[in-house]
Amino acid sequence: MPLNVGLVGAGMIGADHARRIAASVPGARVAAVTDIDPGRAAAVAASCGARTAASDREVVGSGEVDAVLVASWGPAHAGTVLAAVAAGKPVFCEKPLATTAEDCLKIIEAERASGRRLVQVGFMRRYDTGYRALKRLVGGGRLGEPLMVHCVHRNASAPEEYRTEMAVHDTAVHEMDAVRWLLDDEIASAQVLFPKRTRNRFEHLQDPQFMLFGMESGVSVDVEVFVNCRYGYEIRCEVVGESGTAELPPPPGPAVRSAARLSTPVLQDWKDRFADAYDAEIREWVMAAAEGTAAGPSAWDGYAAAVACDAAVRSQRTGEAEPTGIGPRPDFYA
Amino acid sequence: MPLNVGLVGAGMIGADHARRIAASVPGARVAAVTDIDPGRAAAVAASCGARTAASDREVVGSGEVDAVLVASWGPAHAGTVLAAVAAGKPVFCEKPLATTAEDCLKIIEAERASGRRLVQVGFMRRYDTGYRALKRLVGGGRLGEPLMVHCVHRNASAPEEYRTEMAVHDTAVHEMDAVRWLLDDEIASAQVLFPKRTRNRFEHLQDPQFMLFGMESGVSVDVEVFVNCRYGYEIRCEVVGESGTAELPPPPGPAVRSAARLSTPVLQDWKDRFADAYDAEIREWVMAAAEGTAAGPSAWDGYAAAVACDAAVRSQRTGEAEPTGIGPRPDFYA
Amino acid sequence: MPLNVGLVGAGMIGADHARRIAASVPGARVAAVTDIDPGRAAAVAASCGARTAASDREVVGSGEVDAVLVASWGPAHAGTVLAAVAAGKPVFCEKPLATTAEDCLKIIEAERASGRRLVQVGFMRRYDTGYRALKRLVGGGRLGEPLMVHCVHRNASAPEEYRTEMAVHDTAVHEMDAVRWLLDDEIASAQVLFPKRTRNRFEHLQDPQFMLFGMESGVSVDVEVFVNCRYGYEIRCEVVGESGTAELPPPPGPAVRSAARLSTPVLQDWKDRFADAYDAEIREWVMAAAEGTAAGPSAWDGYAAAVACDAAVRSQRTGEAEPTGIGPRPDFYA
Amino acid sequence: MPLNVGLVGAGMIGADHARRIAASVPGARVAAVTDIDPGRAAAVAASCGARTAASDREVVGSGEVDAVLVASWGPAHAGTVLAAVAAGKPVFCEKPLATTAEDCLKIIEAERASGRRLVQVGFMRRYDTGYRALKRLVGGGRLGEPLMVHCVHRNASAPEEYRTEMAVHDTAVHEMDAVRWLLDDEIASAQVLFPKRTRNRFEHLQDPQFMLFGMESGVSVDVEVFVNCRYGYEIRCEVVGESGTAELPPPPGPAVRSAARLSTPVLQDWKDRFADAYDAEIREWVMAAAEGTAAGPSAWDGYAAAVACDAAVRSQRTGEAEPTGIGPRPDFYA
Repeated sequence: MPLNVGLVGAGMIGADHARRIAASVPGARVAAVTDIDPGRAAAVAASCGARTAASDREVVGSGEVDAVLVASWGPAHAGTVLAAVAAGKPVFCEKPLATTAEDCLKIIEAERASGRRLVQVGFMRRYDTGYRALKRLVGGGRLGEPLMVHCVHRNASAPEEYRTEMAVHDTAVHEMDAVRWLLDDEIASAQVLFPKRTRNRFEHLQDPQFMLFGMESGVSVDVEVFVNCRYGYEIRCEVVGESGTAELPPPPGPAVRSAARLSTPVLQDWKDRFADAYDAEIREWVMAAAEGTAAGPSAWDGYAAAVACDAAVRSQRTGEAEPTGIGPRPDFYA
Repeated sequence: MPLNVGLVGAGMIGADHARRIAASVPGARVAAVTDIDPGRAAAVAASCGARTAASDREVVGSGEVDAVLVASWGPAHAGTVLAAVAAGKPVFCEKPLATTAEDCLKIIEAERASGRRLVQVGFMRRYDTGYRALKRLVGGGRLGEPLMVHCVHRNASAPEEYRTEMAVHDTAVHEMDAVRWLLDDEIASAQVLFPKRTRNRFEHLQDPQFMLFGMESGVSVDVEVFVNCRYGYEIRCEVVGESGTAELPPPPGPAVRSAARLSTPVLQDWKDRFADAYDAEIREWVMAAAEGTAAGPSAWDGYAAAVACDAAVRSQRTGEAEPTGIGPRPDFYA
Repeated sequence: MPLNVGLVGAGMIGADHARRIAASVPGARVAAVTDIDPGRAAAVAASCGARTAASDREVVGSGEVDAVLVASWGPAHAGTVLAAVAAGKPVFCEKPLATTAEDCLKIIEAERASGRRLVQVGFMRRYDTGYRALKRLVGGGRLGEPLMVHCVHRNASAPEEYRTEMAVHDTAVHEMDAVRWLLDDEIASAQVLFPKRTRNRFEHLQDPQFMLFGMESGVSVDVEVFVNCRYGYEIRCEVVGESGTAELPPPPGPAVRSAARLSTPVLQDWKDRFADAYDAEIREWVMAAAEGTAAGPSAWDGYAAAVACDAAVRSQRTGEAEPTGIGPRPDFYA
Repeated sequence: MPLNVGLVGAGMIGADHARRIAASVPGARVAAVTDIDPGRAAAVAASCGARTAASDREVVGSGEVDAVLVASWGPAHAGTVLAAVAAGKPVFCEKPLATTAEDCLKIIEAERASGRRLVQVGFMRRYDTGYRALKRLVGGGRLGEPLMVHCVHRNASAPEEYRTEMAVHDTAVHEMDAVRWLLDDEIASAQVLFPKRTRNRFEHLQDPQFMLFGMESGVSVDVEVFVNCRYGYEIRCEVVGESGTAELPPPPGPAVRSAARLSTPVLQDWKDRFADAYDAEIREWVMAAAEGTAAGPSAWDGYAAAVACDAAVRSQRTGEAEPTGIGPRPDFYA
């Protein structure tokens, strides 16, 4: 019996997950789809043999639905997730878990009250083969204790609606989760510096940005965010330890010698970079959901990202290192 | 309704395919399993909720079985494939398609008589992302017309039962298919040279070997086969064209700086190198089989590999370039 | 007629320059050597057929000496350089030009009064083939306007006498000059952050350090300084522009596949990294000195490094971004 | 007292050596220059303060000349070298030492009769840092005993006068010497295969060529020669040993990310590739010549290259592996 998934949100990411479940995830099917745009819901439902539903609550409440996948816009996330938790159904929520730290805490409270993990947050990098290899190295002995992490997050270009704060919420948030997970550590403070601005895009946007995260352990993390770098999509992460360093491998591509250059292609689309990670993420979620629970990035991880984002956005205004004020991690999420 | 697959052969590769279908291939299930070792068949059947069958003919004939996956030992392949074709059922056959060129031709004849493609041969490299990128480059304009291909096929070690001819049949056969497919060309002749022998393994084995294939177009292909190279599993392929060259990307791995070296890991197990390609291969087979037909590497490709292997094994004895004597490709396989 | 060089300071670097002039720099010879340790002076003098002198003033004043090479300890530099300028003799001075910005300004004043360039400061990276390629790229169109520079400066280990301030004066000073030169820009502010400290060395030393330089143009520069990284000596520099990035090439080394790894060696000794650059630096100095003048890094560059170092050392105490207070560059040094 | 060098041949390579001696080789000066074109001789002589001479014999016989550098055209080499040996003067001879094996043997005989090494042949790769690192690896333990060597020798383009045999004499001859030296072994046989021909150049030229050398030890060497590859100049060499492999490092160049590609430049001019090696070669020659003798590649190495070239050219006609017939190396050259 496949796991019947209710899909809330049929935009680009929701449609992508529906296609993924049909093409690459045995043991699951999309059973119901809803979207604020009914036409979009109908199209995705048709593509995978699902029915449409009028609302997220209808999806969550449906007897046909075993588990909920939330891919709506950010402000709607918390409501759907809370409803799913209340219904005792496993729920996968694309980031952000909620748009405020308070809502994240409500979800944590509800989940803890339910007595078991029900929520997985969509930090797919934890499923990337390269990041996993990096984490094994951090946990092994060759690097010694980590001291610094250098990250780069570049996009070829960002759309006009991309604002300065989104460099935190939409972009650096992935580095935030990745370093927390790699180091098994929490972000204690965040600072954002504004380098010289590229003239290639919009006046309203500070791009690039340079972010500094102080971890509770004292490890320093720096992140270059540059979303109009023009040449392509690139993610880098180097962990510097007491006796060695390790770097995320770049995505493989054929080396071409031609016209006086040796070159490899740079990815243009971020969806290609983590395609396998998305598959693995949803497969793991389906396996856990089939057992009535959740694995992977938790509501606590969603909350930790939220407070770190809040601190970084404050720093965009003050220029200072801002404390995240994250408290101790509940044993429930140990 | 999933495609019901009958698995013939429950050894390492058969078990691996059974696991793959359960974990990564939506739209299919293993319905029946047979093996010359009934215990092995039972174990694999149990792992995927299939029943066991007494023979390959029982699997092929079963009304429950929609398509057949052949992973038995080589000499048994032709019989099962011919039975599947006779039954009008799509069949995936691990290489070799048959152990003689004559048997390959019998399969081709039977398939052509059936009026549609039913046979896919397990040349998984055609599904590897790197090889696909290489093929796109060969077909594009940056490299110009291909002139030479340099290949390397190294294994960390080979077992004692690995014999000198197996460097052709079990090892170089993958390069044979890969270059035929990359270049859309046929192998006209094969020559095998014997370099200095490693002392690290068995006296009965000539290792390494250096092979030269002359393509019908005049392109020269050289292949180093070295199955006891000790350091790991490595596949290389460089296409040299009139105006540029392209190389298969190495598998990605984290770069570590430690102990006076910058290093990346080398794979040890060939199954890791092409894991994604195996998944993609079986997914494509399932999709075509659900339509009652076959895609990917054909019986003709199986035949072409067989005559090229025969020529190479002859050359191991004569030291000369031996013609493959392959005839024109039937339009059926165009 | 070769240029007769007077060598002031016969320690490791002075001896190295004496050997270099004999082995790789046609058109020059070391004619006189002095050192506070007469035995050391005698040994170097003997190795290159020079005579010894009792003091730097004797060297500078000698009729036999055409040009002066200063490789004594830092606090002695300014006095010798001022004497050479007063004598109208070209002088090469290892960094620092002087240990205070005031002394640098005195040298600038004296040199300007002399009416021609007489002073070259030993920032050898400007002569490194890789840095030169990088500078050509920055000046070309492919990268667009520079926005950020990411630097790494790692040593395998530092001796016990290496103090926290030396990460600025002895180590990051090279990055300071390199980015000024690469960008044709001045450092406006410097900030030093203290990441988690390695336990591998001495309690008195903060290692690693993370430095941020704000350029007058708004470009942001970050520099990791880690002088006990254990694995080797490594210098990295990546310039991030509006439309592309460029990285300093790593020193070449053979790729070895062995024991499950593909590895290249990491240099252990900084002298090997810039050996060719030292040769080129001294050759250019000799050519200019033979014409009675100086080229390459100037007294102004020495001064600019001094004020940037001062700001960085202040920031080591305050934690804040400290302004360098550098004024406009005199036309004399344009 | 500098070594007074007599330069025989003032074409491109001769002029380059004259410039090199002036700019990078302390302890030597060009004292006399001759060329079949007196104007060319005069120009080079003027550039380095030398006088001109009417003939190679005048140069060799001049009391002002301590050592002779032969950079004339190939057929003239043997005569000048024999004259220098007869005069007891050290002589550096660009390859070929002579255009026939017989003439090489005459030189060997004369040199042996003189009782000491006087001849160095211009195989500059032995002075390349990368090749030297490779040789150290071959001699160390990490690779085990060598079994195969894979070489690539590509030029962007060859002039119209470049003929099929020149792929041996002018191009692969460098690989011949390099593998002999790397492996401390002799070439026992040579075979040349003709892959599909590029249409980019002249009808009279077979390009690329694929060469196979059998070493006396049984090691197999393959060399791709492709002199109109269009994209640039590239030299590769991989030694495959029983337990590991090592590759010549590529020349360093900055990595640029731009326009959807990560690229490094490929050299266009072969003179840039081995510029440092030429410097080191001449420096070592000058040091030995100052002692009245010679070091580096010997007349025996010149002879061994000659017989290997002869075998390869025969194979260009026969298609077969042709024995070189090289005899045992005299103890004089041990």
